[in-house]
Amino acid sequence: MGNAVRLGVAGLGTVGTGLIKIIEKHQSRIRSAAGGPVEVVAVCARDRSRDRGIDISGFRWFDDPIELAQDPEIDVFVELIGGEDGVTLDAVRQALAAGKHVVTANKALLARHGTELAKLAEEKAVGLGFEAAVAGGIPVIKAMRESFAGNEIKRVYGILNGTCNYILTKMEEEGRTFDDVLKEAQSAGYAEADPSFDIGGIDAAHKVALLASLAFGTEVSFDDVYIEGIENIELADLESAAELGFRIKLLGVAMKTDSGIEQRVHPAMVPLHSAIAEVGGVTNCVTVEGDFVGDVMLVGPGAGEGPTASSVVADIIDVVRGTVSAPFIRPASQLKPYKRALMRAHEGGYYVRVSLEDAPGAFAAVAKIMADEGVSLESIVQRRPQSALPGIDARDEAGGARQVVMITHPTYEKAMRSAIKAIESDPHVDKTPQMIRIEKL
Amino acid sequence: MGNAVRLGVAGLGTVGTGLIKIIEKHQSRIRSAAGGPVEVVAVCARDRSRDRGIDISGFRWFDDPIELAQDPEIDVFVELIGGEDGVTLDAVRQALAAGKHVVTANKALLARHGTELAKLAEEKAVGLGFEAAVAGGIPVIKAMRESFAGNEIKRVYGILNGTCNYILTKMEEEGRTFDDVLKEAQSAGYAEADPSFDIGGIDAAHKVALLASLAFGTEVSFDDVYIEGIENIELADLESAAELGFRIKLLGVAMKTDSGIEQRVHPAMVPLHSAIAEVGGVTNCVTVEGDFVGDVMLVGPGAGEGPTASSVVADIIDVVRGTVSAPFIRPASQLKPYKRALMRAHEGGYYVRVSLEDAPGAFAAVAKIMADEGVSLESIVQRRPQSALPGIDARDEAGGARQVVMITHPTYEKAMRSAIKAIESDPHVDKTPQMIRIEKL
Repeated sequence: MGNAVRLGVAGLGTVGTGLIKIIEKHQSRIRSAAGGPVEVVAVCARDRSRDRGIDISGFRWFDDPIELAQDPEIDVFVELIGGEDGVTLDAVRQALAAGKHVVTANKALLARHGTELAKLAEEKAVGLGFEAAVAGGIPVIKAMRESFAGNEIKRVYGILNGTCNYILTKMEEEGRTFDDVLKEAQSAGYAEADPSFDIGGIDAAHKVALLASLAFGTEVSFDDVYIEGIENIELADLESAAELGFRIKLLGVAMKTDSGIEQRVHPAMVPLHSAIAEVGGVTNCVTVEGDFVGDVMLVGPGAGEGPTASSVVADIIDVVRGTVSAPFIRPASQLKPYKRALMRAHEGGYYVRVSLEDAPGAFAAVAKIMADEGVSLESIVQRRPQSALPGIDARDEAGGARQVVMITHPTYEKAMRSAIKAIESDPHVDKTPQMIRIEKL
Repeated sequence: MGNAVRLGVAGLGTVGTGLIKIIEKHQSRIRSAAGGPVEVVAVCARDRSRDRGIDISGFRWFDDPIELAQDPEIDVFVELIGGEDGVTLDAVRQALAAGKHVVTANKALLARHGTELAKLAEEKAVGLGFEAAVAGGIPVIKAMRESFAGNEIKRVYGILNGTCNYILTKMEEEGRTFDDVLKEAQSAGYAEADPSFDIGGIDAAHKVALLASLAFGTEVSFDDVYIEGIENIELADLESAAELGFRIKLLGVAMKTDSGIEQRVHPAMVPLHSAIAEVGGVTNCVTVEGDFVGDVMLVGPGAGEGPTASSVVADIIDVVRGTVSAPFIRPASQLKPYKRALMRAHEGGYYVRVSLEDAPGAFAAVAKIMADEGVSLESIVQRRPQSALPGIDARDEAGGARQVVMITHPTYEKAMRSAIKAIESDPHVDKTPQMIRIEKL
């Protein structure tokens, strides 16, 4: 194995452990795909003695990932530590500077420092692979880099966070509240003790920032992602959505508009009878819309030991074969500055749920506000007092008030925000109206 | 453009025309991805003067694809003629023998001669790209070759023929018969005048043969594909399927079993609430099941000018970059002989619909036959006389007979075939029972 490509693996959590298992189990398969042997020679983690169910005694041990990154005896630095700054960033910088390929599953790191790291990789003519950073086992990065290279991409969107999708699926299927399902997900290990990163939409936003750069040839700009999480989604919304032929998903969307690029993460209505609506539980999906290829959707496990490690291996094979494209398709020096389309200029349909006092003129007041803002309504339904979902009475949640749900014709977010503000201060209205965007698919 | 990679395009139908449009529109995009300019220099088609909506006056014209294939002034031979033998096969052989890369969308050619052509390509160290041959714009070949290279594939399956999926979707949505929808599809151009190739399952079988080889490292063996088309699917089956929580799709499946490899194309029941069930109309999908990555589904347009040409361009970029893998992943000389698992040994659940005389003991006789064959039933429903679909009365189709639908527990095809034969000859039974396999997802 004198000519084996030598991997240094930093981080032996779920993904690192999975990687070592794949390389062990599929040695000959990987050798054949890579055109030569690939072996792990050195590892680094916090705790050397922890039982991971794999034998790491054959690998050189490093306490410091930065030392591992600079080790002259490795060819590829596999970063599976996590974290967007600090030692992780330093280690990746050092590895690239030392002329080593880097393969990482770290979306936060790349969302923050993607452009810089891509430039560094290109200066040194090494690969920077991050297939595992977006949607786990789904090969969307390679598809965008290579398969759709002959297309102008108009939009890329998907379900990019398994925790959120799991919670929304459970709420709808079992008629349970957000808090209830979240607690269960936490005790089952599907959600972190501090879940804000997932349910607040930040994790999905990291991925959107990477997809936007790949799609539009712009610098990675995480700070420009508009983010709303799923914390405010109520059962009443899931029920109303279903009645109106929709399902609610937390979507991450990157799209080109006349005024710039929209990067956004927010709950959105998708058609009930569509493949994306049936992507349930922790499963992820990404749809890429190209001008020639049309819409291609990729669906699969967005996280987990096997799927994520599978993508890491694919990247390793590519860097070994020398076939890695520029990290963000175009040379990093040619990435254009990101031009943000303001969210207020967003155009689309909206779902609005208002909790109204049961008094004459209450709805007329709301309707007038919408009309004054130039928003026209496609449909209006008063929710049935008895819930469509098991075990829930819509009146319980709203405290006896009428729930009126409106679907608007396409309009501007600016108008909607003004309307919502005005509706909220109307004396007939019980609480803050719910507003959910409808994603046109 | 002295160093441009020169394409010779044989065939200027839908895909060839689309290819020339993409190369014209996205010249700089393709140049950047390919690492240099790519240009069409010569073309070949049946009729030089036909208006294709593109200007071909700048390309050298060939009447004979074999001459084009051997032309010293081209680097890549793009075969978009179609046909599994004759001049197409000769042209591809000649192009490879002359050391030119070949990119093709021709599933029939590869299903018949894939192993031979892969060997020829490898002898000459040239690329043989056929992303466009399976599921049009869906990048499943690259995903299997590269993204899932670190996985043992257990099964690959999907909706591989848009015409069949369109017909089944329309039948169900509009409550119309097979013949009725087929006629409409033919006049709309979605189905050929002689539709047997599509609806008989042969087109899907070509794709299955290629997917099987990629998945299992075996020689391409089209003759070993078990094929059933959708000709015998009745509205009563679509209705019963929906009542039982299923939808009927024509699936192409390649899977490893204990006794060998199953390659099969047949109508199959899939769960009604699943993403694959919502893949409607002419859309295709392919699911790859890997031991580490899990199940990844790719959904998209399976045919058409833009999508197919997009995949052709992706292959061209790969051959230009020199990054094409072996056509069937392993070196062609190392592909194992195909070992067929007999269809009689197939294991799974079955849907059976029997048209029974309304007489005492009629169902008891059927039940006894099933029991005698060791087939146990998971559920039995007598179809409601009134159809669940609009405009159809189930009694019309069955001529007043009772329709009894059974879902079996997993069993062997051999037992089912014996049971069906025995049921068919029972005096209480009106006509040949319907048997549809349930695909376990």
